[in-house]
Amino acid sequence: MAWNVYLSGEIHTDWRERIEEKAGQADLPVTFSAPVTHHEASDDCGVQILGAEQNKFWHDHKGAQVNAIRTRTLIGKADVVVVRFGEKYKQWNAAFDAGYAAALGKPLIIIHGPDHQHALKEVDAAALAVAETPEQTVEILDYVINGRLAGYNA
Amino acid sequence: MAWNVYLSGEIHTDWRERIEEKAGQADLPVTFSAPVTHHEASDDCGVQILGAEQNKFWHDHKGAQVNAIRTRTLIGKADVVVVRFGEKYKQWNAAFDAGYAAALGKPLIIIHGPDHQHALKEVDAAALAVAETPEQTVEILDYVINGRLAGYNA
Amino acid sequence: MAWNVYLSGEIHTDWRERIEEKAGQADLPVTFSAPVTHHEASDDCGVQILGAEQNKFWHDHKGAQVNAIRTRTLIGKADVVVVRFGEKYKQWNAAFDAGYAAALGKPLIIIHGPDHQHALKEVDAAALAVAETPEQTVEILDYVINGRLAGYNA
Amino acid sequence: MAWNVYLSGEIHTDWRERIEEKAGQADLPVTFSAPVTHHEASDDCGVQILGAEQNKFWHDHKGAQVNAIRTRTLIGKADVVVVRFGEKYKQWNAAFDAGYAAALGKPLIIIHGPDHQHALKEVDAAALAVAETPEQTVEILDYVINGRLAGYNA
Amino acid sequence: MAWNVYLSGEIHTDWRERIEEKAGQADLPVTFSAPVTHHEASDDCGVQILGAEQNKFWHDHKGAQVNAIRTRTLIGKADVVVVRFGEKYKQWNAAFDAGYAAALGKPLIIIHGPDHQHALKEVDAAALAVAETPEQTVEILDYVINGRLAGYNA
Amino acid sequence: MAWNVYLSGEIHTDWRERIEEKAGQADLPVTFSAPVTHHEASDDCGVQILGAEQNKFWHDHKGAQVNAIRTRTLIGKADVVVVRFGEKYKQWNAAFDAGYAAALGKPLIIIHGPDHQHALKEVDAAALAVAETPEQTVEILDYVINGRLAGYNA
Amino acid sequence: MAWNVYLSGEIHTDWRERIEEKAGQADLPVTFSAPVTHHEASDDCGVQILGAEQNKFWHDHKGAQVNAIRTRTLIGKADVVVVRFGEKYKQWNAAFDAGYAAALGKPLIIIHGPDHQHALKEVDAAALAVAETPEQTVEILDYVINGRLAGYNA
Amino acid sequence: MAWNVYLSGEIHTDWRERIEEKAGQADLPVTFSAPVTHHEASDDCGVQILGAEQNKFWHDHKGAQVNAIRTRTLIGKADVVVVRFGEKYKQWNAAFDAGYAAALGKPLIIIHGPDHQHALKEVDAAALAVAETPEQTVEILDYVINGRLAGYNA
Repeated sequence: MAWNVYLSGEIHTDWRERIEEKAGQADLPVTFSAPVTHHEASDDCGVQILGAEQNKFWHDHKGAQVNAIRTRTLIGKADVVVVRFGEKYKQWNAAFDAGYAAALGKPLIIIHGPDHQHALKEVDAAALAVAETPEQTVEILDYVINGRLAGYNA
Repeated sequence: MAWNVYLSGEIHTDWRERIEEKAGQADLPVTFSAPVTHHEASDDCGVQILGAEQNKFWHDHKGAQVNAIRTRTLIGKADVVVVRFGEKYKQWNAAFDAGYAAALGKPLIIIHGPDHQHALKEVDAAALAVAETPEQTVEILDYVINGRLAGYNA
Repeated sequence: MAWNVYLSGEIHTDWRERIEEKAGQADLPVTFSAPVTHHEASDDCGVQILGAEQNKFWHDHKGAQVNAIRTRTLIGKADVVVVRFGEKYKQWNAAFDAGYAAALGKPLIIIHGPDHQHALKEVDAAALAVAETPEQTVEILDYVINGRLAGYNA
Repeated sequence: MAWNVYLSGEIHTDWRERIEEKAGQADLPVTFSAPVTHHEASDDCGVQILGAEQNKFWHDHKGAQVNAIRTRTLIGKADVVVVRFGEKYKQWNAAFDAGYAAALGKPLIIIHGPDHQHALKEVDAAALAVAETPEQTVEILDYVINGRLAGYNA
Repeated sequence: MAWNVYLSGEIHTDWRERIEEKAGQADLPVTFSAPVTHHEASDDCGVQILGAEQNKFWHDHKGAQVNAIRTRTLIGKADVVVVRFGEKYKQWNAAFDAGYAAALGKPLIIIHGPDHQHALKEVDAAALAVAETPEQTVEILDYVINGRLAGYNA
Repeated sequence: MAWNVYLSGEIHTDWRERIEEKAGQADLPVTFSAPVTHHEASDDCGVQILGAEQNKFWHDHKGAQVNAIRTRTLIGKADVVVVRFGEKYKQWNAAFDAGYAAALGKPLIIIHGPDHQHALKEVDAAALAVAETPEQTVEILDYVINGRLAGYNA
Repeated sequence: MAWNVYLSGEIHTDWRERIEEKAGQADLPVTFSAPVTHHEASDDCGVQILGAEQNKFWHDHKGAQVNAIRTRTLIGKADVVVVRFGEKYKQWNAAFDAGYAAALGKPLIIIHGPDHQHALKEVDAAALAVAETPEQTVEILDYVINGRLAGYNA
Repeated sequence: MAWNVYLSGEIHTDWRERIEEKAGQADLPVTFSAPVTHHEASDDCGVQILGAEQNKFWHDHKGAQVNAIRTRTLIGKADVVVVRFGEKYKQWNAAFDAGYAAALGKPLIIIHGPDHQHALKEVDAAALAVAETPEQTVEILDYVINGRLAGYNA
């Protein structure tokens, strides 16, 4: 069985690449998906395709709705949803995705550093795993898919 | 991942062909589906296969129900539902499909010209994108599937 | 058991009042609900409460979304959805509601005159009853709720 | 029909009281619910009832899960979910609730000031209304429940 | 808690009255519902309200669809569905109701005499109880609702 | 897209073979499935595998439950459910399957001769097509899948 | 809002009475429900009402299915499901109920002593609270319903 | 059609291997899945990947939640769920899985020896087959998938 894993959240570090690279090394049968991570394209897709808006609210609204075609479809098809919270920004879309996935009954893996532990307690409480690094996430996927755990012979 | 996109609505212009052609040029991984667009066959399929009716209401009813086997199945399997409203006719089946898809939680893209803007406000309000041309629809699909947006380098 | 019946569609004749009056005479245990039928309020509610828009599209959009809070909630709670198509206008919101209710599995009663029979065939094909008058609708409700049918002794 | 309205989000201003007061003045048939807004109780409920934890993560986890018994139940029963984002803090639980409610198909009303407009665009894009004040929220409820709109005679 | 119990099937003996009478004697908190059991009204309701049909198929179709407004609504609201198969007739609607209720996850109680045991094995296999008499059905309801079982002191 | 079509009902004539043969000639992209149609195996599968029963009721029960593993799974995966009622026997399992499929929202095609028209009116009323012959069923599938209708040029 | 709380599991100690008594003292707006806790009635209800069985397996089967009419209905209506594991017996029905409730998305509170901690880890991992005493359960209910927490002023 | 069959429960005998071997001999189109059956890895996976815990409860909790990513996903994808109860241990996770699968409407096959018959009556009552050996399970799969039953010619 191939697993679909959606990678939501922070778009300013290379955590998705690190996950995909390590998963490739482990030859995991996983198809990763994600939001569009090109920041400007993600902001402007609505007006660029459907016409400019004078009001910034509708500029943003059009883009966010076009992005939702992608994100809701991919979250809906995911077997596992991973959400990473970075150091900066409000990242409310990340928390929104976590809530959305939780209500759909998707297994959640949350990644964040220790500084955000208290602020993310409600999100963490809905997760089946709380990791600090992308590498841990791949180890979890390797375990839940293949039963492999370093130091434990198969 | 291949996407299933259902193209509902107007059957008297070549908008579906324009979408499929442009999607082919962009090599999008999309399977398009649609109602039967042969107007007479669509009207007569019920009585042609299952026997004539003297009463026009039942003639229409039999055909509409046979068509529903196709349309409800394909909408149910669709990842995205596109509904185009043309210039003429009541097109209540198009609006019905939009409502049907909305209740199933399918992302909706509505296509119509500026003249219908006020009359379609409830339908537009349920959509994630409101376009004017088939070409815009393909640009949306290219963006939500591939993350490609003209003028924004990947 | 009290039944919830939602009355969707045309807002320019007194068909809702006729249904409610006749249902009252028959003492039916029905709670009727409907969209806001004040045309101007329905158009302007969004901007009136949440702030004006220069662009007519967003003026309409804001209003249609506020109205959707009401209509989707009430359709969701309805046991039966009645949709009337009048003589005039596009009435795409009526057909949208019919599709929305159909996808939720709500029993549908459609009311329209004979002129619209062919144009509404897909909508009628999803209905459990197609009536011409509000009075017939009340007779249906009286029958399905109380088992009363004129000329048939209980 | 009585409406259930869940008030999620910020707990450091009196916005819930303002909504409830104004709704009371308008005699709206609404039952409001909310998370426990006593900050310390909300943090400590898990360990206070079920036993202390040395590790802060589990202290938080126990509390967040006990709170989830309340919040998920009440969101699940809500007809409308209102989420307010205040000026301060990360408020990831507010965005999580918005995503959770959206996936359940609940009509969403989001309240926030203009400063957060860009950061909240994905959340706003899932809402049926975006307000700035608690008072606007009550006006929306009055309109969607009673059809009342200031300046428009019934 | 009041229980809703739907009594489907045979309409030519007094089994529903026997259940309701005995349940009344036991003071069970049950609201019973059923299809319209007036045979002629049930056959003719469609044409009587909505207009005559020359073709017997459509005469029956209109009536069966009007009856479905009642039966699907009441089965949908039922906590328990009881289906009785009598000695005569095809009773396909009874078996249809049993299948319909089974797919909705409703607990099924089937009542039939020993002669039909083999022919009903698929229906019985979907039931949580197979009884021979209406009185047994009330004893089951008394037990599952009140925990009362003759000969076993509370 | 390949369609899954489940063929329920009568097991004593060659109607399934006629459907599959004609569908093969038309090269329809359909995977057909059906209950086990070996009458004795179908009756005895439970006791043959899981041990004999003295009581005929439990003999039947064990077999019917084992068969249900197959039938419920295949109906659940079907895009279209076809149910044929033959001339003989009670065929309650056929009507049960029709009800089961209807509650799951599966498009139903019912096949029966004119003699059963009145007795099957509730079942027919839940169907999207009522045919008399297996050949008509294939014509419907060819139309809904390929849009082909004899006498109407593509 | 009144809450429905289902109390599953152990039937040989007075834990349900302790919960109901303490909840009564706190005047909680809770309706408690439970399986039939009369051990012999619970074992014999099937054969007592529906006829004796020689084979012990079917004796048990009939009873367990009659009990399921009650338990599945009440779990389905519950807002919160509490499952207590006692010191003795296999208590597989308690774990079955926990799994059943978890799949329905019901908030779970598990009660057990420290000895069972390792054996119940999968069950505990699906719960929102793990308590040791009935009294803690009432404190949780008082907190999640009323926001009351001893030592924290409202 | 390939069938997905999940094998839950006992991990200390070779019953899974016996099922897979016999299914391979019969060339069944089945993909089997299972929990991680390496006992120590299953216990330690949480802390091994995500960091040690001093408290045994959280050690177990972290592991059980990581395992749940696998088990809930695979049960959710299964067409049939088989649960085996062995001679030893509490095996509450096996009963939990059975309840979880039952609530999802998955066909259940339970395997256990005669000693556990009374203790498992509620679990058995939710199953479509109760077997004693792995070999019987394969015979059931061969019958429900291929219609093959030893001694009955196809």
